[in-house]
Amino acid sequence: MTSYRPLDAEALRACLGARNTLAARLGGAPADWVLREVSDGNLNTVFLVEGPTGALCCKQSLPHVRVDPDWKMPLDRTDFEARYMRAVSPFVGHLMPEFHAFDAELHLLVMEGLTHHRVLRTALADGTAAAGFSARIGEYVGRTAFHTSWRGRPFEAVMKNVARFARNTTLTRITVDLVLTDPCVPDCPRNRPLSPDLDETVAALQSDSTLRDAVSRLQERFLCCPQALLHGDLHTGSVMVHGDDVRVIDGEFALMGPIGFDCGLYLGNLLLHACARPERREWMQDEIALFWRSLEHLYRDLWDENPQAGDVGALLSPESRRSAQAATLRAIRRDSAGFAGLELIRRTIGYAQVADYALTPDRVAEAEARRRALALGRTLILGATMDEAVEACFQ
Amino acid sequence: MTSYRPLDAEALRACLGARNTLAARLGGAPADWVLREVSDGNLNTVFLVEGPTGALCCKQSLPHVRVDPDWKMPLDRTDFEARYMRAVSPFVGHLMPEFHAFDAELHLLVMEGLTHHRVLRTALADGTAAAGFSARIGEYVGRTAFHTSWRGRPFEAVMKNVARFARNTTLTRITVDLVLTDPCVPDCPRNRPLSPDLDETVAALQSDSTLRDAVSRLQERFLCCPQALLHGDLHTGSVMVHGDDVRVIDGEFALMGPIGFDCGLYLGNLLLHACARPERREWMQDEIALFWRSLEHLYRDLWDENPQAGDVGALLSPESRRSAQAATLRAIRRDSAGFAGLELIRRTIGYAQVADYALTPDRVAEAEARRRALALGRTLILGATMDEAVEACFQ
Ligand SMILES: Nc1ncnc2c1ncn2[C@@H]1O[C@H](COP(=O)(O)OP(=O)(O)OP(=O)(O)O)[C@@H](O)[C@H]1O
Ligand SMILES: Nc1ncnc2c1ncn2[C@@H]1O[C@H](COP(=O)(O)OP(=O)(O)OP(=O)(O)O)[C@@H](O)[C@H]1O
Repeated sequence: MTSYRPLDAEALRACLGARNTLAARLGGAPADWVLREVSDGNLNTVFLVEGPTGALCCKQSLPHVRVDPDWKMPLDRTDFEARYMRAVSPFVGHLMPEFHAFDAELHLLVMEGLTHHRVLRTALADGTAAAGFSARIGEYVGRTAFHTSWRGRPFEAVMKNVARFARNTTLTRITVDLVLTDPCVPDCPRNRPLSPDLDETVAALQSDSTLRDAVSRLQERFLCCPQALLHGDLHTGSVMVHGDDVRVIDGEFALMGPIGFDCGLYLGNLLLHACARPERREWMQDEIALFWRSLEHLYRDLWDENPQAGDVGALLSPESRRSAQAATLRAIRRDSAGFAGLELIRRTIGYAQVADYALTPDRVAEAEARRRALALGRTLILGATMDEAVEACFQ
Repeated sequence: MTSYRPLDAEALRACLGARNTLAARLGGAPADWVLREVSDGNLNTVFLVEGPTGALCCKQSLPHVRVDPDWKMPLDRTDFEARYMRAVSPFVGHLMPEFHAFDAELHLLVMEGLTHHRVLRTALADGTAAAGFSARIGEYVGRTAFHTSWRGRPFEAVMKNVARFARNTTLTRITVDLVLTDPCVPDCPRNRPLSPDLDETVAALQSDSTLRDAVSRLQERFLCCPQALLHGDLHTGSVMVHGDDVRVIDGEFALMGPIGFDCGLYLGNLLLHACARPERREWMQDEIALFWRSLEHLYRDLWDENPQAGDVGALLSPESRRSAQAATLRAIRRDSAGFAGLELIRRTIGYAQVADYALTPDRVAEAEARRRALALGRTLILGATMDEAVEACFQ
């Protein structure tokens, strides 16, 4: 342990060199290792380190938002990511990079380096993503959602995660503000200046009191429904793909919450891609269907195989269990639609927008894509199912 | 600080004598103080200490259940009671004894000694309780429920209590088992042998799969709906009265949960009293109505006065706030009915039954009272309102 300082490539090389097990994974001598900064998110510094026999990915928190040094932030975010990886890795296997080490003083997380994988959002943009990746994400959510829930473990084990992740307030505040509030707030200083083409649409959205009421219910659902340990930021930038190998990264927003939040963020990002590239609408709809098929299948199977694993559900007969499964999955879909709606809006007018809009051929098409995303978002928040909303907003 | 040992009266006298502020409250010299053990609950040792100028109540955890030395238990229960008192005292004023001190080594909680008050259950039994006490309990629940909720404070402050009380698992396990599970489990070894008169009723109850399904939903509601900081064991044995002065004691079961749980336990105990003393049914119904009137009034007022105090609700217009209040209060009533039903059953056939049944004149009347409590409990769990259930079960 050393006291905290932001590491540059050479400092990181020395730091890894001093740790035998990590150095052994890379192989060779420190001087042989190739270090590359790959930070492309908003928050942290990330290095990919390649040695003769293996690769590591090293992620370190900074005392501020990486892309905005004036936005100060405590260093504990990688701590929560490390806790999250340790909590879910027993259940998800190779759907996540392997966790290797965490240095609490440096706030440095070391995991398996994925040298051939690409971020899903980028792979979608340049056309290299192989269709079907969503089945793996559905599996990931199904596994984490069951095994970290009141049905999957004795409540004492669940409460450990409740206690642990209730302290992840810095990043949860970002979600509460950016995802769950700002979209409804006229003149919110964090929202980003938009093309004037959308002014009217946005004004209408932000003066819609029925929408606000629904958003208020989603806020409560997010904070007051700790069904399972969530990833908390599961968008297409938090997934890396290589062929049909799919990995979930970047769990620093982890918290206990409604399962539909992880689903909604992910599916909302598929819908955003469909708005930007309307000719891919059917593909994205197929991905959405695959996601649900895989999640629901796994969630039911895990519950059937472990009917007494948790305190909740242990009293049910097999028939009652089946109705409870159906009711639970219906509620997850309902929540997902609402949270997807919020994600569509905040990624279109909020602080952190998506690169997908750059895929539109021109300004007119971009405005059209954004307008569609806003309409979709509104329809979903107001209670439409995902199919109904897509039907209504794509003609 | 000294290392843990169970204190007898003389050890406690010495211990208080060594603490200036506490000794000053009592006045005089330690030899003048009158110590009286008043433990009557199942779990802890409680002493009332009276001096020339004041009185203290001292509560210490034992390494086992007080009434069952074979049932081992960690010492941290008074720690949670102390945390609970500190968390809610700013909101409830004189509805709770004043908190004075907590010694973490001795697990010794020192609070205001209530020398003239009597436990409500006893005061009801001997006819000394003055009607109207439930208005104060409604106020207590209304105040704690609003101010510790996502509507009453920024989510970061609520999450502090989430994190803190998620560690109160020993006592929460007792609630999950004794209140939320055992009533449905045939041959559960913790249930208490009953008069054979009830064998058939109990067998019918415990083989009712619709009831189990409803109980399973209540289990989930209890664990997975942290609306506010609950007392967690709010029965008529956790209330002390003196004239119209009403105090809530014994918050060691505190946890974040659904507001209807506190309401349901309390109201369930009023209904148990009505079962044991049917001629008091109308009085108890009046108390129930008073409870709701006072809780709902306070909860609405506090919310109206602090519309921006929490993250949830801050987006609502005044009209929307009024519908949200109505919906929230409806849901609280719904939960309350279910939890009251569980309390009625577990206090009639479970591990910890109520003294109220000793008020019945003979064995036949007692069996009748218990049968009515079970019927009421079942009706409430299956979804009746409290008025409907009372109507159906008292003829
Ligand atoms: N295990 C890994 N192997 C290879 N590259 C990785 C790995 N983890 C992350 N990366 C790369 O580093 C980039 C940044 O990682 P990550 O998204 O975790 O950082 P972040 O700063 O927390 O982002 P955000 O602001 O979106 O939360 C990723 O987009 C990806 O390109
Ligand atoms: N502040 C007080 N002033 C006077 N007497 C008190 C006070 N607090 C508690 N008592 C007395 O001590 C008794 C036991 O207290 P309490 O119910 O807190 O203990 P417990 O062992 O935790 O009970 P339980 O098993 O019901 O949880 C009460 O029933 C009451 O008679």
